[in-house]
Amino acid sequence: MPISVDLRIDARWIIPIVPAGAFADHSLLIAGERIAALVPTAVAGRDYRAAVHVALPAHALLPGLVNAHTHGAMTLLRGIADDVPLKPWLEQHIWPREARCLAADFVHDGTLLAAAEMLRGGVTCCNDMYFFPDAAARAYRASGMRAMLGLPVVDFPTPYAPDADGCLQAGLAARDAWKTEPRLSFSLAPHAPYTVGDASWSKIVMYARQLDLQIQTHLLEAPDERAQSLAQFGAGPLQRLHRLGATGAGFLAIHGVQLQPADIELLAAQGCHVVHCPTSNLKLANGIAPVAAIRARAINVALGTDGAAGNNRLDVFAEARLAALIAKAATGDAAVLPAAAALKMATLDGAAALGLERDIGSLEVGKQADTIAVNLGGTDHLPCYDPVSHLVHVTGRNQVTEVWVAGEQLVAEGRLTRLDDQDLAARARYWQDRLQ
Amino acid sequence: MPISVDLRIDARWIIPIVPAGAFADHSLLIAGERIAALVPTAVAGRDYRAAVHVALPAHALLPGLVNAHTHGAMTLLRGIADDVPLKPWLEQHIWPREARCLAADFVHDGTLLAAAEMLRGGVTCCNDMYFFPDAAARAYRASGMRAMLGLPVVDFPTPYAPDADGCLQAGLAARDAWKTEPRLSFSLAPHAPYTVGDASWSKIVMYARQLDLQIQTHLLEAPDERAQSLAQFGAGPLQRLHRLGATGAGFLAIHGVQLQPADIELLAAQGCHVVHCPTSNLKLANGIAPVAAIRARAINVALGTDGAAGNNRLDVFAEARLAALIAKAATGDAAVLPAAAALKMATLDGAAALGLERDIGSLEVGKQADTIAVNLGGTDHLPCYDPVSHLVHVTGRNQVTEVWVAGEQLVAEGRLTRLDDQDLAARARYWQDRLQ
Repeated sequence: MPISVDLRIDARWIIPIVPAGAFADHSLLIAGERIAALVPTAVAGRDYRAAVHVALPAHALLPGLVNAHTHGAMTLLRGIADDVPLKPWLEQHIWPREARCLAADFVHDGTLLAAAEMLRGGVTCCNDMYFFPDAAARAYRASGMRAMLGLPVVDFPTPYAPDADGCLQAGLAARDAWKTEPRLSFSLAPHAPYTVGDASWSKIVMYARQLDLQIQTHLLEAPDERAQSLAQFGAGPLQRLHRLGATGAGFLAIHGVQLQPADIELLAAQGCHVVHCPTSNLKLANGIAPVAAIRARAINVALGTDGAAGNNRLDVFAEARLAALIAKAATGDAAVLPAAAALKMATLDGAAALGLERDIGSLEVGKQADTIAVNLGGTDHLPCYDPVSHLVHVTGRNQVTEVWVAGEQLVAEGRLTRLDDQDLAARARYWQDRLQ
Repeated sequence: MPISVDLRIDARWIIPIVPAGAFADHSLLIAGERIAALVPTAVAGRDYRAAVHVALPAHALLPGLVNAHTHGAMTLLRGIADDVPLKPWLEQHIWPREARCLAADFVHDGTLLAAAEMLRGGVTCCNDMYFFPDAAARAYRASGMRAMLGLPVVDFPTPYAPDADGCLQAGLAARDAWKTEPRLSFSLAPHAPYTVGDASWSKIVMYARQLDLQIQTHLLEAPDERAQSLAQFGAGPLQRLHRLGATGAGFLAIHGVQLQPADIELLAAQGCHVVHCPTSNLKLANGIAPVAAIRARAINVALGTDGAAGNNRLDVFAEARLAALIAKAATGDAAVLPAAAALKMATLDGAAALGLERDIGSLEVGKQADTIAVNLGGTDHLPCYDPVSHLVHVTGRNQVTEVWVAGEQLVAEGRLTRLDDQDLAARARYWQDRLQ
């Protein structure tokens, strides 16, 4: 008797991440939200009966990509100020515009646009950090995408909250409102060591322990952060946060461009994660994070796009490729960060950074069915000696044709199933007119 | 009386490169092979009558991209050996496979595949350097693409020729056979200082002067080239070539990763060009060429993809973006290589490197009608504050929908007009089976 499942996907190759490698002519079987089996297509035809059957003869099927750091709503500022260093970029271009527009509707619309872009580009889960997380949660829920919302905290007043306490209050209220949504999760997101004082950090650490929430923060992104912290606090930024109790297995150090050996030892000892954002770090001239050295100490490294204001796209394929390329040049070793490692950073390592590795990040039986199909059959992809290499070095987000999250198809033949392009374009135009 | 032209293209933006900037709602008028006018669309409608009218309401129209360094036929080795440094990559992976397959039919088929990939990705002109240039010329002619064929010279025996004299003889015969083809041009391409001895270089210089041909060579790509040259010849590679008379306005230094200030002064004094190949240089762990310092001395810098064996794609959009990103990180200055400069490198500066700037590289009246349309209307491209920024930082080759070379449409709605995908796929499969 064949086993009944909801969905069967046949692919030219399946790349489950665990185990490593590409499995030619295999099928993924999905029951409800979860993966039921991964077997040769010949076996799938014999042993399974599926309500829906999708055949992808030129495609690679792999876990959905994880964007471990972004500011979704900032898609509305996409490319508004290129070629400017971090400090004036923030102070003269981004913050003044945010001050004019920052409100729940801006965040909702920008996040919806971000979710659309990410889903269509094969990103099924992101880690978002922005003001008005309640509005962002509403947008992600509408999109069907999986998201961790970082509840933002800064000491200075914003249209979101008057101070750090106000940020925490609003953020934790958003979490209370949405915490039963199965595709949403929450963490605490103090913006950076230099924008959040010791008192606020201590409160954040307390909430993190009480509510079992991760802490994520921008850390050592720009060259001057260490000197400033040493002068103000008598310790480097990471050492200061460690002293305040923030480090641990639930701590995500975002960027880490300026990490030094002592910082790396501390992150390793504490079991922290690093989110590498190569495009953003290069574009804002902050440099190249020492990813090979970080990984050599068995620290988990995920990939992030950062926001579209500075990237200017939310494209995890591009980040994986760029991460692989610059790691080789930075170390002078072409063997560093091979394609399989870069692809794992974009999937399972991203899931692990978000504490979601039991549910997503690989195509293993029992995990959530978050999977994407990438068409490797185009002439400009031929020949194909190794689909894993092609996924990192040849293809791009435009080749993603199908996307499922929790077994639900959110992109079909390149088109979003839940969101409407004309509606999204109208929202983008509205805010462009206001921001210009 | 309206003026009759063959083709009118209306676009949301035209980015002619000269003058700088993006011109909203403009039209390009084309008569025969050449650009007749660039005017506001309202004026085009009033003053011109076109046999063919193409309206592109969401697109940017710009000059076709120039890939100033590639090895077209090596598409057949796409991704066959990733994550290996230059020397073992060449000696253990690439050269043994080339030895097995290298012949005119291999070069023809690989070059045809390369031309298809480049055209569809908006590259209308390339500078190719590979064995059997006669077979490559045949492929480029069939594709309709513009190409400069570098006539390769190495001192050691290959299936192409027994020695440097044999290379020159075969190369110059290919040039004689094809030199009246309007879309083909030729240059002399000694592989590198370390593979071509003084006697051969002297002959090459003599032919270059007699026949008014450019000289292009791989220069200072890997870290050990300078020391080896100093030990063997008592001079750095560039200083040696200068002594042999090779430098001048027709000299293209490809890669130039290890260029030092004295080298840069020499290139500037001689009016040479540099071809920057960022992906290849990073992937093979050779490093980052000092592009900002080179450009600061007013040396023309073009962009190249290198071959698909090492890149692993022939995507000039990707090279322009990567060049902009790594130049910022390498200098620590986010203002270095702004988007407009990167786009000019990918177009007019590439044309200038090939000595073709009077005919191509910008959308100026009287130039050849080599132009491409890029759809910037997708949701993941919104909002769009600056189409020039989007062309470098947001879009990619997959958004190219139309391509014209010399007024002939070679890509229409994303499909090749001259070449057949099934035929190309069959050729790729044939060689993949033989090489695997």
